[in-house]
Amino acid sequence: MEQNMMLAYYAAGAGALALLFALFTLASILKEDMGTPKMREISEAVHEGAMAYLNRQYKTLIPFALIIFVLLWAAQYFVEQQPGSHLPVGPASAISFLVGACLSAVAGYLGMTSTTKSNARTAEAARSHGLAKALNVSFRAGAVMGLSVAGLGLLGVSVLYIIFGNPLIINSFAFGASAIAFFARVGGGIYTKAADVGADLVGKVEAGIPEDDPRNPAVIADNVGDNVGDTAGMGADLFESYAATTIAAMLIGNTLFGFPGIIFPLLVGAIGIVAAIIGTFFVRTSEDGNPQAALNVGLWVTNILTAAGTFFLAKAIFVGETAAIATGVFMAVLAGLIVNVAVGYLTELYTGTGKPSVTRIAEASKSGPATNVIHGLAVGMESTFIPMLVFAGAIYFAFWSVGSAAPADKAGLWAIYGIAMAAMGMLSSAGMVVAMDSFGPVADNAGGIAEMAELPPEVRVKTDKLDAVGNTTAAIAKGFAIGSAALTALALFSAYVDGVKHKFGLEEFVVNMTEPMVLVGIFIGGAVPFLVGSQTMRAVGEAAYGMVEEVRRQFREIPGLLEGKPGAKADYARCVDIATRSAISKMIAPGIVAVTAPVLVGFLLGAKALAGFLGGLTTVGVLLALFLANAGGAWDNAKKWIEQGNLGGKKSEPHKAAVVGDTVGDPCKDTSGPAMNPLIKVAGTISLILGPLLTRL
Amino acid sequence: MEQNMMLAYYAAGAGALALLFALFTLASILKEDMGTPKMREISEAVHEGAMAYLNRQYKTLIPFALIIFVLLWAAQYFVEQQPGSHLPVGPASAISFLVGACLSAVAGYLGMTSTTKSNARTAEAARSHGLAKALNVSFRAGAVMGLSVAGLGLLGVSVLYIIFGNPLIINSFAFGASAIAFFARVGGGIYTKAADVGADLVGKVEAGIPEDDPRNPAVIADNVGDNVGDTAGMGADLFESYAATTIAAMLIGNTLFGFPGIIFPLLVGAIGIVAAIIGTFFVRTSEDGNPQAALNVGLWVTNILTAAGTFFLAKAIFVGETAAIATGVFMAVLAGLIVNVAVGYLTELYTGTGKPSVTRIAEASKSGPATNVIHGLAVGMESTFIPMLVFAGAIYFAFWSVGSAAPADKAGLWAIYGIAMAAMGMLSSAGMVVAMDSFGPVADNAGGIAEMAELPPEVRVKTDKLDAVGNTTAAIAKGFAIGSAALTALALFSAYVDGVKHKFGLEEFVVNMTEPMVLVGIFIGGAVPFLVGSQTMRAVGEAAYGMVEEVRRQFREIPGLLEGKPGAKADYARCVDIATRSAISKMIAPGIVAVTAPVLVGFLLGAKALAGFLGGLTTVGVLLALFLANAGGAWDNAKKWIEQGNLGGKKSEPHKAAVVGDTVGDPCKDTSGPAMNPLIKVAGTISLILGPLLTRL
Repeated sequence: MEQNMMLAYYAAGAGALALLFALFTLASILKEDMGTPKMREISEAVHEGAMAYLNRQYKTLIPFALIIFVLLWAAQYFVEQQPGSHLPVGPASAISFLVGACLSAVAGYLGMTSTTKSNARTAEAARSHGLAKALNVSFRAGAVMGLSVAGLGLLGVSVLYIIFGNPLIINSFAFGASAIAFFARVGGGIYTKAADVGADLVGKVEAGIPEDDPRNPAVIADNVGDNVGDTAGMGADLFESYAATTIAAMLIGNTLFGFPGIIFPLLVGAIGIVAAIIGTFFVRTSEDGNPQAALNVGLWVTNILTAAGTFFLAKAIFVGETAAIATGVFMAVLAGLIVNVAVGYLTELYTGTGKPSVTRIAEASKSGPATNVIHGLAVGMESTFIPMLVFAGAIYFAFWSVGSAAPADKAGLWAIYGIAMAAMGMLSSAGMVVAMDSFGPVADNAGGIAEMAELPPEVRVKTDKLDAVGNTTAAIAKGFAIGSAALTALALFSAYVDGVKHKFGLEEFVVNMTEPMVLVGIFIGGAVPFLVGSQTMRAVGEAAYGMVEEVRRQFREIPGLLEGKPGAKADYARCVDIATRSAISKMIAPGIVAVTAPVLVGFLLGAKALAGFLGGLTTVGVLLALFLANAGGAWDNAKKWIEQGNLGGKKSEPHKAAVVGDTVGDPCKDTSGPAMNPLIKVAGTISLILGPLLTRL
Repeated sequence: MEQNMMLAYYAAGAGALALLFALFTLASILKEDMGTPKMREISEAVHEGAMAYLNRQYKTLIPFALIIFVLLWAAQYFVEQQPGSHLPVGPASAISFLVGACLSAVAGYLGMTSTTKSNARTAEAARSHGLAKALNVSFRAGAVMGLSVAGLGLLGVSVLYIIFGNPLIINSFAFGASAIAFFARVGGGIYTKAADVGADLVGKVEAGIPEDDPRNPAVIADNVGDNVGDTAGMGADLFESYAATTIAAMLIGNTLFGFPGIIFPLLVGAIGIVAAIIGTFFVRTSEDGNPQAALNVGLWVTNILTAAGTFFLAKAIFVGETAAIATGVFMAVLAGLIVNVAVGYLTELYTGTGKPSVTRIAEASKSGPATNVIHGLAVGMESTFIPMLVFAGAIYFAFWSVGSAAPADKAGLWAIYGIAMAAMGMLSSAGMVVAMDSFGPVADNAGGIAEMAELPPEVRVKTDKLDAVGNTTAAIAKGFAIGSAALTALALFSAYVDGVKHKFGLEEFVVNMTEPMVLVGIFIGGAVPFLVGSQTMRAVGEAAYGMVEEVRRQFREIPGLLEGKPGAKADYARCVDIATRSAISKMIAPGIVAVTAPVLVGFLLGAKALAGFLGGLTTVGVLLALFLANAGGAWDNAKKWIEQGNLGGKKSEPHKAAVVGDTVGDPCKDTSGPAMNPLIKVAGTISLILGPLLTRL
């Protein structure tokens, strides 16, 4: 055992390595040239705005986190401990919770520092050196976020495991991460869309000035929004998936196989991190090369190295009576990696510029905004079907690959480990995926800075090339986040069922859909994503309204602003402040729903209802996430396709109709849709804690 | 037993009574005066268009029905019969299927004849006699549909039961009804919205002529659409719910209690029908009275009489060892009636003109169509939550009320009867609800005829008063259709589980959500409503596009049409034909999905996957039905609220934005949303047939 425990240190070491690599990369980025004073000024405004938002967000969450900390600590006095088992509450759990919340925040700060300090540097690299260097700077900036997320996740879980030795206790780490993730996703989502809609509706539509025009008072807030939404929100989301999946896999593995079952997921994570570090070195392009291809090479290298490493790892860890499942476990991890690729491909199929589903929306714009919106809704709905089949296939394959290799009497139980391993496989490449995703806002901001600092147009051409790639990687990352959330939620569900079984001393905890309480749970769980979707959608509408009023006011009251007279300067800070305040205030209500719903269902209706609740919540949450994300993406790209000169191009009637669709899609794809991922995961991590505390089945 | 069987004849008698009452009422309506030759001409055009559509729809379905007929007949040779049990296939089942399909069609023809022949008569009644008489004519027209639906449903089930003596065989009656219902709902939904959107987009928005203006070539098609969508579609939908619920209740009742369990649902239906007939006599208003209040009185009388009758019936039927549950069964029926009222109230709360959620959408129209659409989506999503809690509560209450009265060892099993009884309770008032719903299109058409035949404006004021009430009753009926579909689907699910148990000789058929096949089924089932939603939404978009092109062409090519020159006559028939053809051709694809999906899941993945499929399909289907119906209703009424003079009234910028939302909402509330009800029910009735034929668990 002593020597075995060394393996946990290896995992912690891999996490630390990733973190060091991230810090080293950040330091190297900061040495790059920031360009002209104007560029520096804009970049600093964006950086300050982003940091101000993060500070306010985390400050707001402190009391909330402290309440949960105290509840977790104190809960041990209110529940009876089963002989021989550990409660998932008490000081160790409370501390794990805080560590999870704090590390999520640290990853957010690191990533945001990196991306907001790289935008001007990327623009400058594009100006003085060209595309290859610009890709290099912006991708490294993303890699800081990606490796911080994966590194801190693995480091946190490993170290807590080394200290406490019990995955059930450190599940609170995942709970901490998921609570933060929900607020980061929702708050960031509201922020980015309030700013975006505000900037577009008044600036582009009413005043007719171009995007990223410095006369637009919401322009800095818009650039800040790209960072707090895509980078911080996505990072927190995947940090949570990473932590929750690893811990759920450890819990199930512990029940089934003891130590090998615990250590295997940790080491898969370690392999994924090393593979991602190696993968980053493959992201290079020539001056007239294709940045997308460069990123794809990096992702493929990461995936293939992870798969190969996992194969040998499985053979090494599962020996003796569990040797039979080594191949099965590897296959499950592989299934996760394949889902990863498949979901990315499908997202591109439904939402890519020029794809049939997108051009059909554009064509529908010819008869006005209403038909544009109708066709967008249709594309969003359609886009859920095949991904759901893919998830279903992965579930079945993962169960089968582990279950069929197990001894007959254990097939059903061992198979559950398969689903956790598929989730782990999918998330093992999180470092690379987050890097690719976070690179997007950097490129986008770089383009904005090139525009505002009046750099020569060829610079904008280069950043636009990167920005277009960033849109694709963002879409892929969205698919990845949804898919991993689905598999994570299923892993958490399995771990919850396992926990309830132990608590009530059952041979098996059967969640029978013909029982009323299970059905009741499914119905309630299914309705929660719609409620949260509604709250977040409306929050964007209201926050955007406030922003629209402010931008209109500035254009009206600041003389010469709209005409671009020298000396007339927009009050950027005020817009940043409005976005920050409304995002913070409006993230509270959905947060309360997300956290209290499972608690209420569990304590009022019992363990079976809570199981049904998780099932309904996961199914509907994943469906809504796909629907909203893909509808939004398709609307966005239908507009872009028209802007490329199709159907009359910019300013034509179809373009005006497509702008309406794009605006409707904004909160769908960047606020309500992404909120579904942490929603289903936070319910899972809470349920894992609740399971052993519930008093009725 | 001999004497007991008489009870089935009573049920058949009640069905026959309702049918006679409907025919008698229809005859009395036909004696009313049709008004001026112009009114008669328009009315006949609408009638002919509606009949042409129905003929084409049913003709298209004949080969489809014959294929299923042959499959049902032939299937007996491919499956092994369990000793002592009946197969749900063979000649008796095939014949039941055809009878179900035909009676659904008969109800459709009767109801459509009644409503399309009453529109001019209602207008004339408003002109020569006043509001009271107009309500009387239009409500009687609706009552023909309502009592045809309930009467034919009960008559068909009772007679088939008397002949075949086995509820499992006559379940094919429900399957026939549900196959027709799906096509009637989807085809009617596409028709009505293609015509409506086409008429509005070109007529109202582009050409700026009022609604129901005879210059608009799509105006007749629009009026036809109101009938084929709201009357025929809703009627077929509830006919299906009625048949499926009664049969599911009989199946479960048979397993648990034998004959009393079978006969009780039939007699609840009989009581409901008699109560509805009595209720129709209470729908009267004075000249300055409130028609809504009159309809409410009718509904309350029906509900109270049904509740009272059921109480005594339960005491009479459940005697001896089942006496304990008599009260429980009554309570379950009562729960159904209460859900009925609650869902109607909630629909009104979220979508009623002037309610906060509606005015908020209207307010959002001030910043354009995009924010209008965003807020509408938010209202739709929000509106699912409390109804789902109500359904969950009803499920729990129904289970509890029957289960807690049962002997301890049978509590779980007997409780399942509760859910079927709640569904039965809800549907017992179907006759009245359909009557209230079908009255709407009559009033709407009467208004159109008053406009087109240039009757004095005070006639239009009266028909508008009725039309407004019709919108409310339509909303209530929509909630009713969704709620009853949900409970029906659960009853079918329970009956399916029961069937699988027998087929595989299990002590209990456990649908355990932790098993991979169940999860796979839930995921696939959850995705199907989104796919069908997408297909139907796009169908409306495409059909409407064809209509828009045609209306534009006529305005362009028929000289003097737009200016209203005498002699320039729109080609109404062509628009009617376009709507008919596109509705028929586009209802096929979703129909194939609806019918084949459960078959594929059952045979390829097994009985557990099919159970999961039904669970996922029902949950997501009900959620989407609520979301789409209520979002559409709220958009519609937000526009109407502005038209009442708020926020600048008609032709203002907010009004234009609200028109976009209303148009988006059209396919949501009248095509895709309503398609969900038959979708979840047809899967249930098919699964009931499949259960005993499946070869693997």
